[in-house]
Amino acid sequence: MLPRGFSSAGIHAGIKKSGKPDAGLIVSDTSCTATAFFTKNRLKSAHIVYDKKVMDNPVRAVFCNAGSANCMTGEQGMEDLLAILVDLGNLLYVKPERILAAATGKIGKRIPVDTVLKHLPKLTASVTHTDKTFPKAIITTDLVQKFATAAFTAGGKKCTITAAGKGSGMISPNMATMLVFCMTDCAIDKKLMREAAYEAVRMSFNRITVDGDMSPNDTVMVLSNGAAGNKKIAKKGAEYNRFRDAIKSVFYAIADDMVMDGEGATKFIKLNISGAADKKMAERVARQIANSALVKTMFFGGSVNPGRIISAAGQTFEKFDTEKLTLKINGRLIASGGVMVHKNTAAVAKELKKRRLEVDLDLKAGRESCYLLTNDFSYDYVKINADYS
Amino acid sequence: MLPRGFSSAGIHAGIKKSGKPDAGLIVSDTSCTATAFFTKNRLKSAHIVYDKKVMDNPVRAVFCNAGSANCMTGEQGMEDLLAILVDLGNLLYVKPERILAAATGKIGKRIPVDTVLKHLPKLTASVTHTDKTFPKAIITTDLVQKFATAAFTAGGKKCTITAAGKGSGMISPNMATMLVFCMTDCAIDKKLMREAAYEAVRMSFNRITVDGDMSPNDTVMVLSNGAAGNKKIAKKGAEYNRFRDAIKSVFYAIADDMVMDGEGATKFIKLNISGAADKKMAERVARQIANSALVKTMFFGGSVNPGRIISAAGQTFEKFDTEKLTLKINGRLIASGGVMVHKNTAAVAKELKKRRLEVDLDLKAGRESCYLLTNDFSYDYVKINADYS
Repeated sequence: MLPRGFSSAGIHAGIKKSGKPDAGLIVSDTSCTATAFFTKNRLKSAHIVYDKKVMDNPVRAVFCNAGSANCMTGEQGMEDLLAILVDLGNLLYVKPERILAAATGKIGKRIPVDTVLKHLPKLTASVTHTDKTFPKAIITTDLVQKFATAAFTAGGKKCTITAAGKGSGMISPNMATMLVFCMTDCAIDKKLMREAAYEAVRMSFNRITVDGDMSPNDTVMVLSNGAAGNKKIAKKGAEYNRFRDAIKSVFYAIADDMVMDGEGATKFIKLNISGAADKKMAERVARQIANSALVKTMFFGGSVNPGRIISAAGQTFEKFDTEKLTLKINGRLIASGGVMVHKNTAAVAKELKKRRLEVDLDLKAGRESCYLLTNDFSYDYVKINADYS
Repeated sequence: MLPRGFSSAGIHAGIKKSGKPDAGLIVSDTSCTATAFFTKNRLKSAHIVYDKKVMDNPVRAVFCNAGSANCMTGEQGMEDLLAILVDLGNLLYVKPERILAAATGKIGKRIPVDTVLKHLPKLTASVTHTDKTFPKAIITTDLVQKFATAAFTAGGKKCTITAAGKGSGMISPNMATMLVFCMTDCAIDKKLMREAAYEAVRMSFNRITVDGDMSPNDTVMVLSNGAAGNKKIAKKGAEYNRFRDAIKSVFYAIADDMVMDGEGATKFIKLNISGAADKKMAERVARQIANSALVKTMFFGGSVNPGRIISAAGQTFEKFDTEKLTLKINGRLIASGGVMVHKNTAAVAKELKKRRLEVDLDLKAGRESCYLLTNDFSYDYVKINADYS
């Protein structure tokens, strides 16, 4: 069940040749305040250029298509998008500039706009409050749909916050390749909503990496329609904290799903870097390790070759002493004092076979830390490195 | 045939369980001036720590082992290395500090020193001027051995420059994971030799990337014994230029081989970035593209999805206009004016099936340029992205 006042739908609108769902729609009965975070990639999808222009309007709906990124499609791509939004506006009795858009799929591919237009009446007629089809319509290579919800109270009213997301490949820094649509019926000041959402993004989507590739389409949207009837949260305090904690839990759950569902992934790895001289150092070391093809193939193969983790850290040229650092995997000491200390290779190998791994690298160069959620590279680039021992 | 006065050998010395060659030795009849370039990885193999100390001595031999990186092996690793060099020195009648060392293999693994010591008499007895076994003894996951030679004249004497290398995975910036041993009989001033070698390294090994991972063992060594009998090249001019061109051609040939033999590689890609505002911009864009898992899997699969190249460039946050840039593959225009213009997908697909590809990305943001040599990611991380279209 969506938060009060929201409904959604997902159908096949003729974009994917497979006939799978490829168009999704979220509608709110009343106007929403909205905030969004977009990719930092210099290449941007038409929908991002459009959304940035209309973002401050009261928002009534969100249209999302899969199967075409509508990126590197030039003016034609923007015309295609506007044609869809104008028709949708007519069908929903709302101005097109009150509809936000998102897209995922192949770069350079136009949306087959005539076909999509024909399907819009069915799409708008399909929206329901109990919908479960929207998350299916926005996925690409994802194997599982991603959906999370949390409840809390504000002003004595029960509030709900729900997010649907997609993301499996092209997942990396600063808004992983993914789309997330977050809806809440909680009334909250727009600036506070953005602040809480930003904190949640920082702790979730900005902390995951699947393949180090950042998409030109990444988007996280948060819509609040106030249908819960609570007095608008207008300042920080207990109510704001509950809202913030709820959105954090929802975003973290979706981010976790994205990593677990990373293309080809067989392992989920939480990487904790500590003992860094500053935040940047922690971040650089974490990203270098998490995106190292050799580290990722080791985790896939489960071969005991954790020296690659230290070598990846060393590539950052950050100032730490390889003779002082300590490395642990699932709490087991692997390296310290400048040597690999795992005497019991069989025990370490067993640990590496687990589906969820926790890697702790203490650089012993300061007090800053960070974490990243990532996964392995399976098969065969892959095979060679995984079998290499 | 090696340059005059050099001989070498490669044997199995008990390190690799497979029984394959794993220990190599180069010997010069007379003392060499030597220069070397090492990895910039903060983690360094014991042999690099050692070589840096003895590099200025006249050099008589180089010992290299495969199967153990002798890295993260602590003081024990250094003791192992010294034990080998002392024994080798006794067998060769040279001081151990006149022998350089190199190693490749698994991080954290000790050299099985007792076994190796037993094999050293055989190794020293095996060196010949016509040797072809050394290049085989220094490889790991390499499928082919890497060997290149060039001839030139200096002071009326025929000079030869020869290099043997290894490198297949863990190949990336600033001295790719690789070992290169270059020998010349040309007498040349040490500073001039280093300058020419550095220029050659910059144009070859520093321009290749297989997987974006930099090893803690990367080493390029150049030895000159002057056995050609030429008057030492002591200043820049025609003779220096011939030396420089010869070492460049030899290094470039080895680098080319390394990329072609990259782990799992099926394609060789020369990536030319032009129109950058400055060198750093060109370099960053090139490396981001060359190391993008999505770009590399596209080249493997040959699916027509070159928008990924532009998206990878955009991830650098460098200032260029995606509506102005042009992208060509094998001379065929793929993107310009903010759109993907390849109308003839079949023709592009055919181009992408070729084993050697040239990619030209003109950022239209300035006049600086650079190139990188790289390859594809084969199989299956890989498979998912290659089939995704």
